[in-house]
Amino acid sequence: MNVLIIGANGQIGQRLVRKLQESSQHNPIAVIRKEEQLARFEEQGVKTALVDLEGSIDDIANVAKNADAVVFTAGSGGHTGADKTMLIDLDGAIKSMKAAKQAGVKRFIMVSGIGVHRWHDNNHLEWMDSSPYYSAAKYYADVWLERSGLDYTIIRPGSLTNDPGTGKVKVADDLEHEQISREDVASGIIASLEDDQTIGKAFDMINGETPIVEALKTL
Amino acid sequence: MNVLIIGANGQIGQRLVRKLQESSQHNPIAVIRKEEQLARFEEQGVKTALVDLEGSIDDIANVAKNADAVVFTAGSGGHTGADKTMLIDLDGAIKSMKAAKQAGVKRFIMVSGIGVHRWHDNNHLEWMDSSPYYSAAKYYADVWLERSGLDYTIIRPGSLTNDPGTGKVKVADDLEHEQISREDVASGIIASLEDDQTIGKAFDMINGETPIVEALKTL
Repeated sequence: MNVLIIGANGQIGQRLVRKLQESSQHNPIAVIRKEEQLARFEEQGVKTALVDLEGSIDDIANVAKNADAVVFTAGSGGHTGADKTMLIDLDGAIKSMKAAKQAGVKRFIMVSGIGVHRWHDNNHLEWMDSSPYYSAAKYYADVWLERSGLDYTIIRPGSLTNDPGTGKVKVADDLEHEQISREDVASGIIASLEDDQTIGKAFDMINGETPIVEALKTL
Repeated sequence: MNVLIIGANGQIGQRLVRKLQESSQHNPIAVIRKEEQLARFEEQGVKTALVDLEGSIDDIANVAKNADAVVFTAGSGGHTGADKTMLIDLDGAIKSMKAAKQAGVKRFIMVSGIGVHRWHDNNHLEWMDSSPYYSAAKYYADVWLERSGLDYTIIRPGSLTNDPGTGKVKVADDLEHEQISREDVASGIIASLEDDQTIGKAFDMINGETPIVEALKTL
């Protein structure tokens, strides 16, 4: 599978690119924003594409046309200004969905955040109130994807760590707010790409005891 | 008609409340955010409701339950921070739509901005690039409303002025970026409330030569 990774220079993105590059079944295409980020990927022999998510949908569609799947893992994580949250996490995500459709790419995987689907519930997770504009952006991007007609999977990881991956997770509609390593999130993305049963599914994902491939089959 | 005005203390909101109060057919309910804004409306004998759009949908639904229509004219106009644009212009608007549905209010009028529907077109209006996060917020709120199942009207006024109203406008799907007075926008909202042919319509509105009631009939 040729997998277009939007946000390839991010912390999950870099791990995902490396894992896809190491696998015999997939080819990553690293979508990045700045020219100075190209070298890192080219040294690894990874295909790259330079795209500004604040640019046109046509530009994104143009790099998506050779892909079999799009993974969206770009974003601010709540640490940039709210203007970039709007323009990348929300608008950039939705422009990427429109671009995928325009390019004829059906498969789309979104890296969201734990509990985001409950943003409008009065009992939503506490972390969401500490960065409400980020929560809102992720919520609307996810809802758009669910209504997009794309073959989507929405992965909502817990608090991200740089711990080594364990290859084991817990997945469900609603989980307690616990941690998960970025390494395991990257593995979860690849396992989702390889399991069509995850199409049309959205789920929280945290550290757990079940091998990722098996865990996804419980959804 | 009992008309709930969300953003009643804003520059369009105040004019709309006054016009509704003066009419014999309608009763405004002014939704405002701060207690110190109450006096201005109560002195005019206007019903008020204190609601924080960053609060729960239930709170908004609770004040909407006696209304026959909701007008959303709250917002930053691009001058507040992007966090408030996300939480008021986008999330507050969509929470208001959800609240209207929850309260059983079908009629919903949105005050948007000229050309907002073309945000993702490469030839969108120039003003949108000078406040892209504002443009995105308004775009997504409008799209949500169109898909909400509510009896909506989306009015997209040009550059707003404090000139006296002329009672005459130009309306169409796509207009050049010209001015319109807030007074005429308020009149356009009321004329839309009184003309069910505007249900399911979204249109640009600028200064023009045609009396508002007639102009709306051309849509």
